[in-house]
Amino acid sequence: MADLSTPPDVPATNDDQAPAPIVTPWEVSGIIDYDKLISQFGSRPISPELLARFEALTGHRPHLFLRRGIFFSHRDLEALLNNYEAGKKFYLYTGRGPSSTALHLGHLVPFIFTAYLQKVFNVPCVIQLTDDEKFLFAKQQKGDKPPPPIEHFMGLARENAKDIIAVGFDPAKTFIFSDTSYIASLYLNVLRIQRITTYNQARAIFGFTDSDNIGKHAFPAVQAAPSFSTSFPVVLGGAVDIPCLIPCAIDQDPYFRLTRDAAPRLNYLKPALIHSKFFPALQGDNTKMSSSLAESAIFLDDTPKKIKTKVNKYAFSGGRETVEEHRRLGGNVDVDISYRYLTFFLEDDEKLEHIRAAYSSGEMLSGEIKAELIKVLQPIVANHQTRRSEVSDQVLDQFFAIRPLEF
Amino acid sequence: MADLSTPPDVPATNDDQAPAPIVTPWEVSGIIDYDKLISQFGSRPISPELLARFEALTGHRPHLFLRRGIFFSHRDLEALLNNYEAGKKFYLYTGRGPSSTALHLGHLVPFIFTAYLQKVFNVPCVIQLTDDEKFLFAKQQKGDKPPPPIEHFMGLARENAKDIIAVGFDPAKTFIFSDTSYIASLYLNVLRIQRITTYNQARAIFGFTDSDNIGKHAFPAVQAAPSFSTSFPVVLGGAVDIPCLIPCAIDQDPYFRLTRDAAPRLNYLKPALIHSKFFPALQGDNTKMSSSLAESAIFLDDTPKKIKTKVNKYAFSGGRETVEEHRRLGGNVDVDISYRYLTFFLEDDEKLEHIRAAYSSGEMLSGEIKAELIKVLQPIVANHQTRRSEVSDQVLDQFFAIRPLEF
Repeated sequence: MADLSTPPDVPATNDDQAPAPIVTPWEVSGIIDYDKLISQFGSRPISPELLARFEALTGHRPHLFLRRGIFFSHRDLEALLNNYEAGKKFYLYTGRGPSSTALHLGHLVPFIFTAYLQKVFNVPCVIQLTDDEKFLFAKQQKGDKPPPPIEHFMGLARENAKDIIAVGFDPAKTFIFSDTSYIASLYLNVLRIQRITTYNQARAIFGFTDSDNIGKHAFPAVQAAPSFSTSFPVVLGGAVDIPCLIPCAIDQDPYFRLTRDAAPRLNYLKPALIHSKFFPALQGDNTKMSSSLAESAIFLDDTPKKIKTKVNKYAFSGGRETVEEHRRLGGNVDVDISYRYLTFFLEDDEKLEHIRAAYSSGEMLSGEIKAELIKVLQPIVANHQTRRSEVSDQVLDQFFAIRPLEF
Repeated sequence: MADLSTPPDVPATNDDQAPAPIVTPWEVSGIIDYDKLISQFGSRPISPELLARFEALTGHRPHLFLRRGIFFSHRDLEALLNNYEAGKKFYLYTGRGPSSTALHLGHLVPFIFTAYLQKVFNVPCVIQLTDDEKFLFAKQQKGDKPPPPIEHFMGLARENAKDIIAVGFDPAKTFIFSDTSYIASLYLNVLRIQRITTYNQARAIFGFTDSDNIGKHAFPAVQAAPSFSTSFPVVLGGAVDIPCLIPCAIDQDPYFRLTRDAAPRLNYLKPALIHSKFFPALQGDNTKMSSSLAESAIFLDDTPKKIKTKVNKYAFSGGRETVEEHRRLGGNVDVDISYRYLTFFLEDDEKLEHIRAAYSSGEMLSGEIKAELIKVLQPIVANHQTRRSEVSDQVLDQFFAIRPLEF
């Protein structure tokens, strides 16, 4: 799976002229109007009624990512909840393209949310690491060096799995796999999907060209296959009709449109989807986070000091030019990265509202809201590092083992 | 692998106007000029000198398929023999697309030859059954029924393997696999090949169109992968530099041109090839053998009586209209199917030459040469049936087991 979390890692750019927004699995750029995206993609917004339903059904308050509209769009979530209410358990499917060891906070978003869904619905979860994809789509390196070998991406898959496990998945209910290690079980569904997908369709959906390699054309079926429970004969116990819910960033939707089109032709259930917005780069909207640009994001191995420096130095501010002006006009929370990051990571709704009001009114200054963010992020990242350090090879092997998950 | 033996199974046609010959992995038609094919494909003819070399090296008389020019073309066979002489063992790779249980005599040709090569060179052999390919390339069935499911082709792979084993492969030196069962081990090389092959290249080589499914585009890498010893870490003992020799019908050459182009870019050895001509249908050149047309071929489950009837009734004759004319002008062995089949299956060179002379001169009549063929084919097919019936599931499992082969 390409990063289900964030725009793909590409060098940061900050054009003066904002180009038309682009949202594909390979590229996300521009200022994105998420309402437009919903109507363009044909998905559905997550309504207050749906959230109320969610709460009644799980007995849990909706996650802050839901309350705050970070997961904002869905496909067939009502039907999934109806079935769940009727006693039909589903499984969760999410994933990541292992392109780097340098994960940043945004990469955690889909996993934090998926782990939360696993807990409140008490359901199994499969997590795909698309080492094959990252190899097939890897760009030429600097100085005409060929892209790294497949083994490089296989290694990254295991490294990234440590970060995913550290988020807090239930080892009895979670199966993590890399495509190269699990392809044997996926292959029948991969073939079934490939057979009913033409080159024309793949090109229309993904924008491939005739110069792209044949692996790229074939890959969408590899990301589609885990949407069907028959791809997990052991892990999901051989049942063929377990519904699937896929939490992912909205740019991954094209994969699952293809998947949902294929499903009825294969006599499979269409997977349900729940889509997130993108996590912004430190420099703000229309700039990109990149593993090779330390200042573009808060990375999961950043020290408390580094977090402080980065936020203070690079987090795009919605504050005004001078203190006086700021006091008079207030800060703009729509573009202020400190505020935006707080909406992702500050648990306390009241406190967040207090900050929003104070910053918008000019009562709170840029330095102060940055201090609030630093205070929130430092322990989150430090705790992540502790939990990650506890993920031994043995723990990894436990999550990668092909064994029946608890339902 | 598409049938490495014969033109693909398609309904028989017998056009009055001979169209331009076509030789691709998907279609073989027309009267084929094999010399032209060699220059068109850029391969090399098998020379008398090469055969002498072959004999000196192995201590065995060249197989009748070599003596009679049925295997007629090669790539890099000299280099392979040079290395072999210097003590460098190679492995054999051949295969079949499992499209039907109804195998005919022509299907045996590459396997008879490969088993012979295994014996005289004392080398291991891997045999690929491309159940994935046959599923991806399957045509709509009659009445708009969808093509059979993948399980159908997986079953055919095991059935076909029984016929292959019956040919006489050494169980200690032979590994048979279907792609769906062995894909996990092939996958890394499949990805490596896919990454350096563009859609443009695949289209140029195989004639795919934009309406073809994405699995077809990706498949050539699956047939290419076994050409590299690293696809067999266990079976070939982990050595990365074992040369490969591929016996196949000439229509499969495009796959291995792609493979040979890929090899140096992956730091792999180019596989050597040895190409056969096609086995003709009973109705003669420019007609096709088809599993669905019983009269088009001698099938491996035909009874002695059926063989007799088929040869007498359907084998295209190079004889003359009347006995008198035949005695005067003689028969034409170039088109006479009985004679052509004898060149494939009558061991005795002297006897074959006697028949050729007698038939060409008009001394031997059509009915008589047909009787000779029947006498040769009946025991071959009956013996095959006996040996096939002895291939138990246990024997099958032995050949399919992933284990080190003897070198």
